[in-house]
Amino acid sequence: MPHRNPPPTSAVRLAGWACTIEQSALQEMLARASHPDILSFALGLPAPELFPTKEFAQASARVLARRPRCLQYGMPSEELKEHVVELMARRGVECIREQVFLTSGAQQAVNLLARILLEAGGQVLMEELAYTGFQQVLLPFHPLALTVETDADAGMDMDSLEQQLSNGARPAFIYVVPEGHNPLSVSLPSASRTRLAELARDYQVPVVEDDAYGFLYYDRLPPPPVRSLDEQWVFYVGTFSKILAPALRVGWLVVPQSLLTALSVAKESIDINTATFAQHVVAAYLDSGQLPDHLRNLRAQYRVRRDAMHRSLLEHFPGGSKWNKPNSGVFFWVELPEGMQAEQLLKVAIEEERVAFIPGQAFCVDGSRKATRCMRLNFSHCAAEQIEEGIARLGRAAKRLGDSSVPAKRQSV
Amino acid sequence: MPHRNPPPTSAVRLAGWACTIEQSALQEMLARASHPDILSFALGLPAPELFPTKEFAQASARVLARRPRCLQYGMPSEELKEHVVELMARRGVECIREQVFLTSGAQQAVNLLARILLEAGGQVLMEELAYTGFQQVLLPFHPLALTVETDADAGMDMDSLEQQLSNGARPAFIYVVPEGHNPLSVSLPSASRTRLAELARDYQVPVVEDDAYGFLYYDRLPPPPVRSLDEQWVFYVGTFSKILAPALRVGWLVVPQSLLTALSVAKESIDINTATFAQHVVAAYLDSGQLPDHLRNLRAQYRVRRDAMHRSLLEHFPGGSKWNKPNSGVFFWVELPEGMQAEQLLKVAIEEERVAFIPGQAFCVDGSRKATRCMRLNFSHCAAEQIEEGIARLGRAAKRLGDSSVPAKRQSV
Repeated sequence: MPHRNPPPTSAVRLAGWACTIEQSALQEMLARASHPDILSFALGLPAPELFPTKEFAQASARVLARRPRCLQYGMPSEELKEHVVELMARRGVECIREQVFLTSGAQQAVNLLARILLEAGGQVLMEELAYTGFQQVLLPFHPLALTVETDADAGMDMDSLEQQLSNGARPAFIYVVPEGHNPLSVSLPSASRTRLAELARDYQVPVVEDDAYGFLYYDRLPPPPVRSLDEQWVFYVGTFSKILAPALRVGWLVVPQSLLTALSVAKESIDINTATFAQHVVAAYLDSGQLPDHLRNLRAQYRVRRDAMHRSLLEHFPGGSKWNKPNSGVFFWVELPEGMQAEQLLKVAIEEERVAFIPGQAFCVDGSRKATRCMRLNFSHCAAEQIEEGIARLGRAAKRLGDSSVPAKRQSV
Repeated sequence: MPHRNPPPTSAVRLAGWACTIEQSALQEMLARASHPDILSFALGLPAPELFPTKEFAQASARVLARRPRCLQYGMPSEELKEHVVELMARRGVECIREQVFLTSGAQQAVNLLARILLEAGGQVLMEELAYTGFQQVLLPFHPLALTVETDADAGMDMDSLEQQLSNGARPAFIYVVPEGHNPLSVSLPSASRTRLAELARDYQVPVVEDDAYGFLYYDRLPPPPVRSLDEQWVFYVGTFSKILAPALRVGWLVVPQSLLTALSVAKESIDINTATFAQHVVAAYLDSGQLPDHLRNLRAQYRVRRDAMHRSLLEHFPGGSKWNKPNSGVFFWVELPEGMQAEQLLKVAIEEERVAFIPGQAFCVDGSRKATRCMRLNFSHCAAEQIEEGIARLGRAAKRLGDSSVPAKRQSV
């Protein structure tokens, strides 16, 4: 049959938001950091040599041998929900199985909440520096992103938040990472958590609490999550990606039961909302009772890496650099001395020293230039010796870039 | 601190689409069909006893032992993409690895295409009877759903499609299930496939070809997918859910390379777009070369079940019932005699005979009542003896409901 109209330059029409996208910074970094000769502090990768691989193999064999229906469509794993309830109790959160909703990782958990809470063009409220993965969730919604002040010493500023709300802001939700903040690495103080829960209640604005790093603390037990202070307005996001392994893609939400139907329909439309093989494997692993020891070991190993990075920064970074030694999470947030730009440093670091990190600018929500001197450095992925080597190289690049070659003196802990 | 305003009846505000949703028919069925004393033909479940469970256990052990990074974040599995290219060749589709995009099942694949192609409130074109899971994908977009005629004998009507397009319809895409249609179970004739590819090209409208059942055929090799006729305008959706196991959540797209960035960003925002443990396990299973034998066995077993259902329908269903014996897929589409309503039958069937199915009405896109006499019956999940028992019970319920008790005579094969 002949063509009715000769096709002109054929180009598939994409939805508006999709026309404007480019490969994300995170994706590019994922590709670049996988280059074997780059020593990368860019991504929030866990240490693969600490994955409980042997135990997973055992759990997986047990599941396949004993539960023939584990590969079938079915309702999300009740056993795993039960384990989540226990885990939450260890974080100081009381909840019941009926408030737990299983997801394909924390990213999907946040995405699902956005889908059921946020209208296209609606408002959402977050800190002026926020996890890029969350910013990507928002992309297709074209929301009005309201921002509040934040810093690496005290986290989200509650006065700034209250001002926004009392001025009439009514976001679909407030997004926070109170523990092991990404990228600032700060732990939100208890008083701020209390105030946040109160503001949520008073203004009837839900809080989405992303607690991906809540189980990774090093010197002292962090305060309980905001969810422990309000079970109606705080929606908790948890994940096994950082404490077991990311490729399992198992995360969870703790939410009021009234949200479950909407979440379930939203997830069904995304990926059917069925029990996954990985849910069963994680449940079987947790059945074995090995998680507490694994977590203890993980914290001990990451503490060593954190301390190595802290010492190396002290030794090799130019004077005038600033950072806090984090109690939780997997990042350092480092501010370079006046006059130095992190993006310039990244260029030099990659080209001349084969070291990567993410410049602070990548996390700025409102396009402001307030984090141009900042950088996010991951300490969970590389072994201590690599961290020492990498920070020495980065320090060399920084000193080459800046004028100063005085060793770091000023830093706050 | 005291509450600033005493909270009134506190209710979380949901996004508009989420306020209107109820538990989906599919979800309710999933819950109901899991009741042990119901014999269910409702869902498109594969037979769990045919899952290659032992081989997965071996594949999973191999992966965990040999590839320590298989649990880490990383780029989607290139090995699995390579296997998909080979699989596609067996379906008569030529493609390269760079056109393959891995997803968490076919549902996510279709969802991702909708996200990058469809504007909120945009147009989408489909048959008047369509898979409910696809209708759920559309929910949050509030699209204008344009429908074209279809039937159980010839599938999507190409004249009706051409008329819509020549009248100016410009949908974001056309959704089709050319093989083992869900729910109609029809195989789209070759001539219609050719014409569909031409219409797509001529009017520059993409076709989303959902080929979930393309590898499950019973009497003769089906025609090659529409994707084999056009690689620019036809986006192919494949999945391992029906041929290996659903709980693995591994599916794929074959699309023009120009779509990959948008897909990748869309998936990253949904669930990070990392290699999953299941991707590695499926790749390792495919490495072992056992899939062709497994597929042969699966087809042989499902053929036995299909034949059992066909014979039982002939024996037990009331005269005037109509159906085709399907060459592919996992469903029968049965039309009951004049005057009989499938929804009424379902009530009787569940309450008095403990048998479930999905009434045709559930698949009607435009709310019309044209499938009220129809029902979808799955034949892949139950063993032949259960099928015989269940169809006998259903036939009993149907005869009780209708006036006639004459055994079925008229049916077309």
